[in-house]
Amino acid sequence: MKTDIEIAQESTMLPITEIAAKLGIGENALEPYGRTKAKLDIGALRDLPRKGKLILVTAINPTPAGEGKTTTSVGLSDALNLLGKKVVLALREPSLGPVFGVKGGAAGGGYAQVVPMEDINLHFTGDFHAIGAANNLLSAMLDNHIQQGNALDIDVRKITWKRCLDMNDRQLRSIVCGLGGKVNGVPREDGFDITVASEIMAVLCLSSGLMDLKERLGRMVVAYTRSDKPVTARDLKADGAMTALLKDAIKPNLVQTLEHTPALIHGGPFANIAHGCNSISATDTALKLGDYVVTEAGFGADLGAEKFLDIKCRYGGLVPSAVVVVATVRALKHHGGVAKADLNSENLEALEKGLPNLLQHVGNIREVYGLPCVVAINAFPTDTAAELKLVEDKCRELGVNVALSEVWAKGGAGGRALAEEVLRLCETPSEFRFSYDAADSIENKLNAIAAKIYHADGVDLTPNAKKQLKQLEELGYGGLPICMAKTQYSFSDDAALLGAPKGFRITVRNLKVSAGAGFVVALTGDIMTMPGLPKVPAAEKIDVDENGVISGLF
Amino acid sequence: MKTDIEIAQESTMLPITEIAAKLGIGENALEPYGRTKAKLDIGALRDLPRKGKLILVTAINPTPAGEGKTTTSVGLSDALNLLGKKVVLALREPSLGPVFGVKGGAAGGGYAQVVPMEDINLHFTGDFHAIGAANNLLSAMLDNHIQQGNALDIDVRKITWKRCLDMNDRQLRSIVCGLGGKVNGVPREDGFDITVASEIMAVLCLSSGLMDLKERLGRMVVAYTRSDKPVTARDLKADGAMTALLKDAIKPNLVQTLEHTPALIHGGPFANIAHGCNSISATDTALKLGDYVVTEAGFGADLGAEKFLDIKCRYGGLVPSAVVVVATVRALKHHGGVAKADLNSENLEALEKGLPNLLQHVGNIREVYGLPCVVAINAFPTDTAAELKLVEDKCRELGVNVALSEVWAKGGAGGRALAEEVLRLCETPSEFRFSYDAADSIENKLNAIAAKIYHADGVDLTPNAKKQLKQLEELGYGGLPICMAKTQYSFSDDAALLGAPKGFRITVRNLKVSAGAGFVVALTGDIMTMPGLPKVPAAEKIDVDENGVISGLF
Repeated sequence: MKTDIEIAQESTMLPITEIAAKLGIGENALEPYGRTKAKLDIGALRDLPRKGKLILVTAINPTPAGEGKTTTSVGLSDALNLLGKKVVLALREPSLGPVFGVKGGAAGGGYAQVVPMEDINLHFTGDFHAIGAANNLLSAMLDNHIQQGNALDIDVRKITWKRCLDMNDRQLRSIVCGLGGKVNGVPREDGFDITVASEIMAVLCLSSGLMDLKERLGRMVVAYTRSDKPVTARDLKADGAMTALLKDAIKPNLVQTLEHTPALIHGGPFANIAHGCNSISATDTALKLGDYVVTEAGFGADLGAEKFLDIKCRYGGLVPSAVVVVATVRALKHHGGVAKADLNSENLEALEKGLPNLLQHVGNIREVYGLPCVVAINAFPTDTAAELKLVEDKCRELGVNVALSEVWAKGGAGGRALAEEVLRLCETPSEFRFSYDAADSIENKLNAIAAKIYHADGVDLTPNAKKQLKQLEELGYGGLPICMAKTQYSFSDDAALLGAPKGFRITVRNLKVSAGAGFVVALTGDIMTMPGLPKVPAAEKIDVDENGVISGLF
Repeated sequence: MKTDIEIAQESTMLPITEIAAKLGIGENALEPYGRTKAKLDIGALRDLPRKGKLILVTAINPTPAGEGKTTTSVGLSDALNLLGKKVVLALREPSLGPVFGVKGGAAGGGYAQVVPMEDINLHFTGDFHAIGAANNLLSAMLDNHIQQGNALDIDVRKITWKRCLDMNDRQLRSIVCGLGGKVNGVPREDGFDITVASEIMAVLCLSSGLMDLKERLGRMVVAYTRSDKPVTARDLKADGAMTALLKDAIKPNLVQTLEHTPALIHGGPFANIAHGCNSISATDTALKLGDYVVTEAGFGADLGAEKFLDIKCRYGGLVPSAVVVVATVRALKHHGGVAKADLNSENLEALEKGLPNLLQHVGNIREVYGLPCVVAINAFPTDTAAELKLVEDKCRELGVNVALSEVWAKGGAGGRALAEEVLRLCETPSEFRFSYDAADSIENKLNAIAAKIYHADGVDLTPNAKKQLKQLEELGYGGLPICMAKTQYSFSDDAALLGAPKGFRITVRNLKVSAGAGFVVALTGDIMTMPGLPKVPAAEKIDVDENGVISGLF
């Protein structure tokens, strides 16, 4: 069986100018990066109206078995393309760090990939490096401000802004910096996050343009004074220089799928402490250029779709036309209690036991958000006919639309049934609504998400979180949307509760504001914002030959 | 008077495809990055023979007055272009960090600049970010190796590899990392350098191609074991992945001057702990494409030209045809003892007193290296006619070629006299030789540089340096060229000894190997490898408007 990189390297890419021409992008709006990548000048496309229908791809709660959300998104767009539709794919950019860890690349898989996969997985067009530079410029200016006299009276014990690197590097999670005497800074505790966890990533992805970006960057809270007043990036006069560093990073990147479907790959915030979807500027641009836009949200629908719909759609003025919920037989069996080692054997009982996870996500999409929805069963070679039939039958019984997707093995041709169903749903009348009103109190918003999306019995705030809630409302941040940071493995805040658990409560332990991004983050536990490398990092296998051809990247 | 960025933004750039076409670069070798930048595929140009004559621009010992070496290099190439010559400029890339500190940009000045200056000064084509990623991947793999069992028996007190960021951030000079308990790494002392000080920068600039790059990366020493054996990047299996990260960074970047002269801007290692010149791949490519190639070395000729000639020319098989030594009246007066505040007043006595600094550099170039040489007096508005005449007369008296350069004010037209002199010198027979034989002992090589280039009475090694010397020779590094890390302000190792000091000795305090770059670094004092920001960082003034136009960058 061929690896993803082998399939990708055997493909013939069209020149990016041809992909752009298909979309009617003029030369004035196209900035090529090499021959197969380009940035689009959103300024030059400003006056185009949005015309496309937006299709969101989300999934059941993730399992170690893998669900194939990106693969399904790529394959669905190729299938729509095969049906003669003018379609644009809008996905997140992969983070460099995990490429060298366990995970490998993140540009789809099999015959449903975006290319050039090596470039997309490595530096791509430099967006994440630009975000890292802006993040670390702010850090340097913050510490320099303290070193040079601390006119703003920043409390070094209340600095909330961390440095970042696009690398899996546990050694930098917790450090003491500013050591070595007076000329080398002020000693304090510090740490690095991976770049995708930087608030700047979320800011970039939620900005409508360059001036909105500058405004949001300026609002970011980096520390508190000794009298607990927030200190912002604007107070440090860092917003202009940061925006200058990001002036190209805000432009969406155009590439193509293996089947030459245009793809905008842009932005990639964490899906726990941030909102986990590609940029508004890319989605907006895609809606101007295509009749159909396929996009994806992070993790399962309880986190990813909820934030896509309640945060990104709210800020971007976006209204989806249809939602695809991806599931695999293997993952459903895992939700039904099967261990990873046993997932290859047929197990109809466990499969049926796992189905409620899928059905609850579908119910949320339809009933809470008022959107038409289809289940995509992402076929695996080990699936049995009986298993596939069981899922289809159960869905149909309950009036849930369902389609088998074989895009991993067959590319766009394997997604025809799904594409046809999606096209039908796009013509269905829908009444999109948010799951909560942003103007409501923080506590009410938390309760709304927990009750409607998680099906929890209620929300408990720790004493610490209650104190933070009061402080955030006093500082005027109470009217922002909520960004839940919760385990992705369960509807609940307990990773072990698979399926569709009942009779549980959600505990919020920390509340903090991402004032630039424009949301209040509610943490239900410790969230790791700097991954580590495994015993044998994937990096050890990566190599490049004399012609610059990379191997060992998955 | 217009600022540099105003002049640059008023200019009209040609499409980079036109600049490439002028040089006969086929589409197969050109990888555009936006409309005015491109990378050149050195693989596609591999079989072209070198045809150009190489002109090195160097300078007197730098002073706070500024010498204008880059400005002179740009202007000279424009002047050669005006004279109808096929010329290619080959310069270093500016570092992002200093742009936000005091210094501002580094792309020439006045009417002698390379453009787009904002892009060149900010992320450009991402080369430095790629170097930073490769550097920090190696760090992460090193610490992960220790965390996962330390099979190589690395002594955490003998780790020589540091992390890096392209930022002026004193707070990171000295840190303790790996804090926070067992899952967060192994506590140890660490620190960050600015990216340009990473050995990977020097390696990239001295590599002849991708496979040589991988070989050199693999050789880099990152730590020593508990029994003092060197541990290399190859031991950590990091060389392949690092090379993959650098596969595009090794390709030279093509831009243009304000007068549309082609310019390859590529690489920029420190000029103290590294060799301080642009990449061999860029210089080699320039020599294949142009009949004349103008290039530049860091700091004054005692450091910059010495390393260009003894390290870069040795590894790159390069033979310069002529050398330009840049001086200003103001800088010479400073060498003659005038304080910065008084440099605007005519002072013939001090000027004459400062001239020996210039003449000693000229003598070194001619007598030690056997190369023809011309002095370029980079004109400043405050220079008086009598001052300019004095310099010219003194040079002529001693048989030193000299030309007035007014390229800052007039562009290429202001460099005609210099260009004509350079063309004449390029036809002069020369006998290029190195200042030492690499096969000689480390001590003899140090003595040769000190005696011939610095005119010192000798070299003293501290007991520590003697011990290191012995160790390095035992490990087989004795036959490498020497990279002197010395103050740039004086021929001596004492920054206060201006002019052409006599009767001093050089003290070498530390010797360490850069085994990948391929030189032994001799440190005569503490070298700062991570700058800090000043009281009011330049970043505070940098801004960008709604059209993406940057202001406040100098």
